[in-house]
Amino acid sequence: MSGHVVALCGGVGGAKLAHGLALALPPDELSVIVNTGDDFQHLGLHISPDLDSVMYALAGLSDPVRGWGRRDESWAFMEALGNLNGETWFQLGDKDLAVHVERTWRLSQGASLSEVTAYLCTALGIATRVLPMSDDPVRTRVLTAQGWLDFQDYFVRRRCEPAALDFRFAGDETARAQPQALAALERPDLRAIVICPSNPFVSVEPILAVPGIRRAIRESAAPVVAVTPIIGGKAIKGPAAKMMTELGLEVSGAAIARRYADLIDGFVVDRADPMPEPIEGLTFFDAATLMNTVDDRLQLARAVLQAVDSLRRLHHD
Amino acid sequence: MSGHVVALCGGVGGAKLAHGLALALPPDELSVIVNTGDDFQHLGLHISPDLDSVMYALAGLSDPVRGWGRRDESWAFMEALGNLNGETWFQLGDKDLAVHVERTWRLSQGASLSEVTAYLCTALGIATRVLPMSDDPVRTRVLTAQGWLDFQDYFVRRRCEPAALDFRFAGDETARAQPQALAALERPDLRAIVICPSNPFVSVEPILAVPGIRRAIRESAAPVVAVTPIIGGKAIKGPAAKMMTELGLEVSGAAIARRYADLIDGFVVDRADPMPEPIEGLTFFDAATLMNTVDDRLQLARAVLQAVDSLRRLHHD
Repeated sequence: MSGHVVALCGGVGGAKLAHGLALALPPDELSVIVNTGDDFQHLGLHISPDLDSVMYALAGLSDPVRGWGRRDESWAFMEALGNLNGETWFQLGDKDLAVHVERTWRLSQGASLSEVTAYLCTALGIATRVLPMSDDPVRTRVLTAQGWLDFQDYFVRRRCEPAALDFRFAGDETARAQPQALAALERPDLRAIVICPSNPFVSVEPILAVPGIRRAIRESAAPVVAVTPIIGGKAIKGPAAKMMTELGLEVSGAAIARRYADLIDGFVVDRADPMPEPIEGLTFFDAATLMNTVDDRLQLARAVLQAVDSLRRLHHD
Repeated sequence: MSGHVVALCGGVGGAKLAHGLALALPPDELSVIVNTGDDFQHLGLHISPDLDSVMYALAGLSDPVRGWGRRDESWAFMEALGNLNGETWFQLGDKDLAVHVERTWRLSQGASLSEVTAYLCTALGIATRVLPMSDDPVRTRVLTAQGWLDFQDYFVRRRCEPAALDFRFAGDETARAQPQALAALERPDLRAIVICPSNPFVSVEPILAVPGIRRAIRESAAPVVAVTPIIGGKAIKGPAAKMMTELGLEVSGAAIARRYADLIDGFVVDRADPMPEPIEGLTFFDAATLMNTVDDRLQLARAVLQAVDSLRRLHHD
């Protein structure tokens, strides 16, 4: 089976499956569309946390312990900034900073976020096409009892402590989808669209909120498969489970499948979890979705591609 | 003897005497006016090399071996930037970078360079008043056989290799002197103006080019004393001697004294050098001007203050 695969993802968990897909597929058969709703300006720098997580994962540079940022990172900048009474609530490693400074500088010279991302990927030896969902700013905001908060204020500074009541993606009415991302979703040879195991509320839905993307996915003839970010009633990392509770949702893959139901043809739950009740028009699969090792990433990618191809056969039969 | 001392300086050598003066005087009796002609934008960051050298010297943070930048510096950022094929001709240490990022961010929020400098000095525990010569951009340019070069292009990227034929300080016609700097030079209780052992062409003369500063020095009733940056026909550090040769000047303290003759009342040569031929209206002093240790800085500062006070007695008698 060949054809082009498009993966949608956010940061850490999603980036791991994106890496697995990059290992399983030739570079020209994969495009990764990345959430930029977490992007923000900090100390004058343009930070793109999810793009960086994806780049670092694909380049083999991710820190395996912290789960974010770069391996073998050092913190001399951060310590010196603290000694200047600068803002230290958002950790910037010395190596990570090189990406932020280079990106910010290139953006200031008029390059688009996609152009900068392509430049950085080439420099880091990444052959897979990594695309921001949009070159225009779309910024996730979280409604809490303390009012609407900017995403990083909620996520990092307040450590997701306030209960999340609602989400908004500022700029999503006027943002244009990144052209290659939209074109990838509309390719006639599209093999599959994969929604990676990322937080649905703040990683995947910002991508879906960019005009044209949800429609392109819905209208695609290719199978659309999502992978659960919830295993055994818990999120592997991040606030997905906490958010589901706060929003009154059951904390399960099935609840996420229902949330994506108008978009997806298949949903992969973890093999340790019970198979959900059937949902019309939706096929459930199970796989080992916990990705501790690089091989886990590759095996999950292969399971997802198998699921995808079985759906394609189903539709063609 | 008390009263206010104003020191004019550039980077490394001048910063050492500024430090000596800060050790010799109570904080409220010293203002240091610093060259900003070397300032430049690099990777979107506002770099102020001489302000940083002075701050690091006063805070005891200077690297004692390299002669620039911070002690115990690390280079993870620079290495990572190199791996991104970024510009690495201007070395930015991880700790040093904290100053550049914080400064650039504060300037972008509308703070003046003086305000940012005051903030950084407070954070670094510096009680002495450190003042940029101007909050407006004045940029040193160097005429070479290859045409006019930006200072850092000449100084760092080309390692001062092209022969220097002339200097220009772009913006010097419209720049306003930093108000506290000008006010310090005009204080009625001014004890002395000290021209530190900095490069005359690219450290001191940019300061003198800022409208109002040369006139304020010339009109000051306080003694004006300069300290030689040349010992035994050589510059301790930097291209001063090379420039003097290229400009057809004798490489000596005496030649620098002649260059400053319309401004200064006293000139300190190194005690290892012969006492220059007398110049009318100018008193020569000698002292140990090489500053290898912190105590050397203090001793030279004391010698300079002694020279200053002897000139004052001379004028009052």
